[in-house]
Amino acid sequence: MAKEISSGEIAKLIHGECNDNSILVNKFASLSKADETSISFYLDSKYKEQLDLTKAATVILKAKDASLRDGPCIYVEDPYLAFAKVATLFQETKKVVAIDESLVSGKNLKLGKNATIKAHVSIGDNVTIGDNVFIDSNVMIGDNVRIGANVRIGSNVTIQNDVKIGSNCNFFSGCVIGCDGFGYARDKDGNWLKIPQTGSVTIGDNVDIGANTTIDRGALEDTVIEDGVKIDNQVQIGHNCVIGKNTIMAGCAGVAGSTIIGKNCMIGGGAMFKGHIIVADNTIISAGTGIGKTIQQPGERYTNVFPYNLKHKDWLKIAAKLKKWVKDDKTK
Amino acid sequence: MAKEISSGEIAKLIHGECNDNSILVNKFASLSKADETSISFYLDSKYKEQLDLTKAATVILKAKDASLRDGPCIYVEDPYLAFAKVATLFQETKKVVAIDESLVSGKNLKLGKNATIKAHVSIGDNVTIGDNVFIDSNVMIGDNVRIGANVRIGSNVTIQNDVKIGSNCNFFSGCVIGCDGFGYARDKDGNWLKIPQTGSVTIGDNVDIGANTTIDRGALEDTVIEDGVKIDNQVQIGHNCVIGKNTIMAGCAGVAGSTIIGKNCMIGGGAMFKGHIIVADNTIISAGTGIGKTIQQPGERYTNVFPYNLKHKDWLKIAAKLKKWVKDDKTK
Amino acid sequence: MAKEISSGEIAKLIHGECNDNSILVNKFASLSKADETSISFYLDSKYKEQLDLTKAATVILKAKDASLRDGPCIYVEDPYLAFAKVATLFQETKKVVAIDESLVSGKNLKLGKNATIKAHVSIGDNVTIGDNVFIDSNVMIGDNVRIGANVRIGSNVTIQNDVKIGSNCNFFSGCVIGCDGFGYARDKDGNWLKIPQTGSVTIGDNVDIGANTTIDRGALEDTVIEDGVKIDNQVQIGHNCVIGKNTIMAGCAGVAGSTIIGKNCMIGGGAMFKGHIIVADNTIISAGTGIGKTIQQPGERYTNVFPYNLKHKDWLKIAAKLKKWVKDDKTK
Repeated sequence: MAKEISSGEIAKLIHGECNDNSILVNKFASLSKADETSISFYLDSKYKEQLDLTKAATVILKAKDASLRDGPCIYVEDPYLAFAKVATLFQETKKVVAIDESLVSGKNLKLGKNATIKAHVSIGDNVTIGDNVFIDSNVMIGDNVRIGANVRIGSNVTIQNDVKIGSNCNFFSGCVIGCDGFGYARDKDGNWLKIPQTGSVTIGDNVDIGANTTIDRGALEDTVIEDGVKIDNQVQIGHNCVIGKNTIMAGCAGVAGSTIIGKNCMIGGGAMFKGHIIVADNTIISAGTGIGKTIQQPGERYTNVFPYNLKHKDWLKIAAKLKKWVKDDKTK
Repeated sequence: MAKEISSGEIAKLIHGECNDNSILVNKFASLSKADETSISFYLDSKYKEQLDLTKAATVILKAKDASLRDGPCIYVEDPYLAFAKVATLFQETKKVVAIDESLVSGKNLKLGKNATIKAHVSIGDNVTIGDNVFIDSNVMIGDNVRIGANVRIGSNVTIQNDVKIGSNCNFFSGCVIGCDGFGYARDKDGNWLKIPQTGSVTIGDNVDIGANTTIDRGALEDTVIEDGVKIDNQVQIGHNCVIGKNTIMAGCAGVAGSTIIGKNCMIGGGAMFKGHIIVADNTIISAGTGIGKTIQQPGERYTNVFPYNLKHKDWLKIAAKLKKWVKDDKTK
Repeated sequence: MAKEISSGEIAKLIHGECNDNSILVNKFASLSKADETSISFYLDSKYKEQLDLTKAATVILKAKDASLRDGPCIYVEDPYLAFAKVATLFQETKKVVAIDESLVSGKNLKLGKNATIKAHVSIGDNVTIGDNVFIDSNVMIGDNVRIGANVRIGSNVTIQNDVKIGSNCNFFSGCVIGCDGFGYARDKDGNWLKIPQTGSVTIGDNVDIGANTTIDRGALEDTVIEDGVKIDNQVQIGHNCVIGKNTIMAGCAGVAGSTIIGKNCMIGGGAMFKGHIIVADNTIISAGTGIGKTIQQPGERYTNVFPYNLKHKDWLKIAAKLKKWVKDDKTK
């Protein structure tokens, strides 16, 4: 049976005010799916009709929207942030703490309390894993890896040798942490010689790494992902990069080697960064934008993809005119 | 021994006409690799020399190309489509139906007839799997997953909890279906709080999902991939997206959260879509193009990458002139 | 105990000259991390301070920089290339040659000497594997695969049926070799029919394939990766492509089907190639650049992303002016 929580308790948690603090709820749901024991939330006028029709026992909304609902409410400043906090209260977590017998592990494994390790996992030598860690199926963890408490590692994840991970991190399925960086020197015959990648990857606390994302180990020093960084799916981080605290990167972004991205940056999907550059704190990069030079001034936004849609035939006209510029240009 | 099929039978299947319906063939091959018991196909003049030299017993071609070959032929409207149908006839499928003993599965597994499950697979609780399903090695299937008949799941694939899959689908190696969407709310200290992703993913019939592609689960509702959608490798689909029936997406494309793409769209490789927009049916997006706004008119094509190659030094000239525009512009 | 090598021996290996050939070293390290038994290297003035402070026993540097250091040195033409060679000398390789008992393998497996196969690997029928091969955990190798000597296959890698691999190759974690190419024919009802992909993938010697990279099998002929090619993470290579000898491709690049890239090309991160085109030898493609047409002239560089950063508001001005061109244009 799901636990019941009173609207008063919830209001306290989210720094909100109740018009009725005695309502008991036992789950979280969207306005349209809520029933008589649900708590829900109202963001903006797009959801007005759903608000009118909802069966929710109580609804989180902004104080300025108080007039929109007669029934029980909790008034807050930021309903979306409140939603994040409240939804966590009701998350069901399967309390099966167990280590599947298919685990293959090396010597000197130090495993914290309440570890869950699912099927077909392998763990190398000299690995230390904190309390309450969840490791899903088919995970490979190399030698000398250190993992903090409350970390979740999804299925088919790879964590290579020597990687250090803080606490409260999520690694989503298929991500690869600590493979060799892409470093080669060319000999006189045109062959590429691999540079040994002897650094590793250091990851802070509260970091999330998306599905099939790849983060390479450093060549001599470590690649570093600082506390609170959130990285979406299919992002590529090259060797020796540093991603600053609380920076957030959307899907398909790429960062070439040795680039340092500051704190609190917001990186749009598919954005690409050249190697060996520095990006100042609080920078915003629009989706799809390529960054080829260091950004020194913090807090600016950069864009180089069209902010509107270009019909194919219209773009051909623009492209032809741009090409003509080259023809007309007499300089070398 | 491979089965023999007559040219007459094949002609019937592909709505073609034979000049000789008694030819027996037992395999499909390209013109250059065909032997005396092969059927092959001729697309266009690029293959004229191969057509002259081929040893194929019979060749599928357009009626208008009849004069190009004296020997046995099957005339059709669309040889490429005919090829797709005929090649399937001769596909060898290893008839090993077996469940490897390394399978780790939870409670209440309902497995259809003729299931093949290869090595090191894990399946959660309350999973239902249809007839003739093939699951390759190292696959992880979560709890409460439903999979229809004739689905093939490649090696190292992840299907997370609650995902629903129709029939006749292909999931290629390394794809990840149903990981958490990328949703965070920011608190006053600049920390990102994870929004629980309580929706899932619903996938229709006849859907193909490419290698290492990722499709996130919805935040409150499901992410939806409709019938007949074909998605190539390394595509990223964010939470709450809907991809309409028979839309086809080439490799490395990305769709940010809550975007709805219509039916019968053709999306080029590397195309990127902003979140929370709508794309009309039958839209064509050129490779590499970014789409940042809703497209309301169906059937249009959009492009914003150069339709010709730009030499580095020519592009520098264009870029310098564009930059000068900013300098000359007196508006803020 | 690590082996000791004299500076004289090392100088010989890297075609350098010593000012003291009797120095014994037992490891490689960066200038800042080196101790009294380390050899290190000096690239350029960025590292001048580190050079002054280093504890390294001897340092590799250019002859022209000889005056920068009083102590033992080895003078070479290209210190980075020398570094690649020397670092390899001291790489520790764990000498555990073993085959984990969780291996599931088919019939007719031919395994060379000194093979290491880690946990939860599966290998199909009729597979031939050379000497000194290392296969990490959770790898899936299909039927009829041939793998040369000294190949390393990372965790969670998939090698599909019939793939042929030369010697001295590295496959990093999560890469997928030989899944079906993306080929469909459309019927009159708008449904996409899958074209069987009956070719495979042929990979030469000394090839590296990055983490989560995907290389599709050919439709009728093989996809080909020639000797010495180095491919970074999250690259997508479509069916029937050919990547020429010693070409190097940075992360997140994509090549659509049937495109032929020449020898010794350098492809920047995120570059995208249209299908069915040819790229001449020694071509350089800048990061993020899209190539839509055949390149016939060898040795040129192409670019179409901005070589400087554009502030969002400046780009809006440029975009508005470009859009005005379309409005002003009277041609259809």
